[in-house]
Amino acid sequence: MGDYQAIAQQFTEFYYKTFDADRAQLAPLYRDNSMLTFEAKPFQGTATIIGQLVDLPFKRIEHQVATVDAQPSNDQGGILVIVSGVLLVEEERRPMSYTQTFQLLPESGNYYVFNDIFRLVYPAA
Amino acid sequence: MGDYQAIAQQFTEFYYKTFDADRAQLAPLYRDNSMLTFEAKPFQGTATIIGQLVDLPFKRIEHQVATVDAQPSNDQGGILVIVSGVLLVEEERRPMSYTQTFQLLPESGNYYVFNDIFRLVYPAA
Repeated sequence: MGDYQAIAQQFTEFYYKTFDADRAQLAPLYRDNSMLTFEAKPFQGTATIIGQLVDLPFKRIEHQVATVDAQPSNDQGGILVIVSGVLLVEEERRPMSYTQTFQLLPESGNYYVFNDIFRLVYPAA
Repeated sequence: MGDYQAIAQQFTEFYYKTFDADRAQLAPLYRDNSMLTFEAKPFQGTATIIGQLVDLPFKRIEHQVATVDAQPSNDQGGILVIVSGVLLVEEERRPMSYTQTFQLLPESGNYYVFNDIFRLVYPAA
């Protein structure tokens, strides 16, 4: 217990730093059985997922993480990571809220992303 | 494939209908190994989790679900369910955005909540 919190934090920092610098470099985090649901659209497999991320219609993006929650997801060392934050796209200075859920699964001493679900969260009022 | 989407939808409707009517009645959905992280505070086990939900400082609450995403979480029939929506508390008419992630695990033909992570999402701007 506790270790998964540190791993979730490290993963989150690495993931968004890489995403914001060059999102094609996220490929090593995914496998062919990985799933992404991006704003309700489903993608499966490394090439398909990275293709979708690279095709997003912006060049510059900045994620600002507000919260990171983590729980063990199974007895084999899986970790659920739930992030909320805001993102800034291109020169647009109006941030949008988002939430992203990952399930990380262990593999030879490291982790890969098995589940990935991304949603923008619109203001309630 | 596809089936988990229907189960996620049914679960979500049942969960919030029960929560908003009498949240003590959610007890059958949890087990002693279930985990809840509620606004960063961790709880484990049915009695502890239900105790926390019942102790929340409001009598009337209404969840309005905006989105439900689902993915298989393992090869044994587990399902990740990610909900976003708004909630209205007591007579307060100003809604708050929230996101809640569940992992449902199968058990004798039904499902229970193994992971439950709740977060309010504050407006970005």
